[in-house]
Amino acid sequence: MGKTEISLLGEFGLIRRLTENIRLSNQSSIVGIGDDAAVLDYSGREVLMTTDLLLEGIHFDLTYFPLKHLGYKAAVINFSDIYAMNGQPKQITVSLGISKRFSVEDLEEFYEGLKLACEIYGVDIVGGDTSSSLTGLCISITCIGEGEKGKTVYRKGAKNTDLLCVSGDLGAAYMGLQLLEREKTVFKGEPDFNPDFAGKEYLLERQLKPEARKDILETLSREGIVPTSMIDISDGLASELLHICHESKVGCLLYEDRIPIDYQTAVMAEQFNMNVSTVALNGGEDYELLFTLPLELHEKIENMEGVHVIGYVCDESMGANLIARDGTEIKLQAQGWT
Amino acid sequence: MGKTEISLLGEFGLIRRLTENIRLSNQSSIVGIGDDAAVLDYSGREVLMTTDLLLEGIHFDLTYFPLKHLGYKAAVINFSDIYAMNGQPKQITVSLGISKRFSVEDLEEFYEGLKLACEIYGVDIVGGDTSSSLTGLCISITCIGEGEKGKTVYRKGAKNTDLLCVSGDLGAAYMGLQLLEREKTVFKGEPDFNPDFAGKEYLLERQLKPEARKDILETLSREGIVPTSMIDISDGLASELLHICHESKVGCLLYEDRIPIDYQTAVMAEQFNMNVSTVALNGGEDYELLFTLPLELHEKIENMEGVHVIGYVCDESMGANLIARDGTEIKLQAQGWT
Repeated sequence: MGKTEISLLGEFGLIRRLTENIRLSNQSSIVGIGDDAAVLDYSGREVLMTTDLLLEGIHFDLTYFPLKHLGYKAAVINFSDIYAMNGQPKQITVSLGISKRFSVEDLEEFYEGLKLACEIYGVDIVGGDTSSSLTGLCISITCIGEGEKGKTVYRKGAKNTDLLCVSGDLGAAYMGLQLLEREKTVFKGEPDFNPDFAGKEYLLERQLKPEARKDILETLSREGIVPTSMIDISDGLASELLHICHESKVGCLLYEDRIPIDYQTAVMAEQFNMNVSTVALNGGEDYELLFTLPLELHEKIENMEGVHVIGYVCDESMGANLIARDGTEIKLQAQGWT
Repeated sequence: MGKTEISLLGEFGLIRRLTENIRLSNQSSIVGIGDDAAVLDYSGREVLMTTDLLLEGIHFDLTYFPLKHLGYKAAVINFSDIYAMNGQPKQITVSLGISKRFSVEDLEEFYEGLKLACEIYGVDIVGGDTSSSLTGLCISITCIGEGEKGKTVYRKGAKNTDLLCVSGDLGAAYMGLQLLEREKTVFKGEPDFNPDFAGKEYLLERQLKPEARKDILETLSREGIVPTSMIDISDGLASELLHICHESKVGCLLYEDRIPIDYQTAVMAEQFNMNVSTVALNGGEDYELLFTLPLELHEKIENMEGVHVIGYVCDESMGANLIARDGTEIKLQAQGWT
């Protein structure tokens, strides 16, 4: 692939090059890129709005993160926030701060991933801002989605006795990150970073190309189920569960032995001498959905593919607790960056 | 003022601290900060969406840019984009990447400016993302505004023979920047950066605390005038005018002697040995409105306070040209970053 210096195109040339083949597909997208603002029509619908900032060195390491994957992930993690409101993502704006070492082709690669994610999830790119950066790559995406009035699901609706459910499995993205970081150290200094990841593909995919759980919402919708509360797992199960408890003013009981963990995650945690439950509780970047449902849906949800009941909602006075494998109760604690 | 290390509060504590007294005031703001996405209601209205990325060292220098002013400006430049569509800004999300050298109080100062701008322009802060940054401060704001259906004004509506109008005066923000940069060099190494700016207040204000021209839209609206095309001047008059010509498929004649320039701007340009017209054409950051109107509104607009007719729209084949003071015709050229 060629390496065209960005200065050859200039700001406007670069924007044109990156966005020239972007087409709008949603009825609500009236006008996209090319004016001061995008124009959208959301008559009769709720507008959902979310934003995420990704900074090089903090959220991603380009040593092992291919730019196409990064573009894909940057889009998907925003879609995940809209799904977590029981909505459908429809438009995004994309702002990039770019340092000198990036070529036009690098950015095209990033946009390729971005566009692929948008195509798969049915989202339009409607605007953005592109700027030079003195240091690393800076990515800011804002996503607008639509919600059906009365069906938007918040963090705050969980009720005492509700079932606590989670989609997919947890901890794999974090183990994928550990694996990549380890190999990076091993390969330090060697020009071609190409380690053997056979048998660990799932962990890498969860880290490098996560998916948002649109499918789970479709399944729930087919069954006529609207969760009482919902959140997506970006910071780790423990942290998100505490958000739901805090916003809903409830407590919860989470069973350690019910937390869904993939075989590769467990094997890798053992290799790294980590407690796999801690990984699942605090690892983050899973982008699975954590939600609550009325107790009477127990049978229906137990038979639903890709969903696991991991505990119960209880009264606020009981607090948020983990029931460990040995039956002891441990107070849940959150982790964020400091 | 105290200096609280951000690590003392942690991510969630910091977000809570910065956002705890944010109230929603717009009817369209259903739910703001605190869930995966904000929820808005735009029934019967068009949704306008715009975004801006500001990076330390590229867009601002904290040596002379007070954080409160920076917060104010970061918000206002987004509002300006919504006004340039003939819309009203209503909600923003604010993402910040923060390096270790910032204290909680620093960020509170930034938010103070942000909130002041939002209060003055009637905008709600409905979400955002806060992250640590390895390097400088990174600010990404996305603004949502409402447009009346059929009254949204694009860059593309200018017609042959239309009047070319601009609000306020141009070049002052750029001269303010030059002044600040010069004083910074002079004061290099001295701990207290406090130069005497007497008589140059207007230039500094235009750079450090710009306003968006909501008032011009109100005046136009009172007169029942809807521009045929409009854009806000962030990159400089020449660049924005070329955008209008390109999008509208027209040419234009811009008269150098009609370009509105403040006395302080002219004096400072002379001191810096700069051509004041070049400053007004390419300086940028004026956040004035550039718009076109049908020729028959000539008398009405000539008497409107704060608006200047600076030229005419002509056929595309004639190109976009500046008529210099001596009558010579010069082809207009854009400048962006490279």
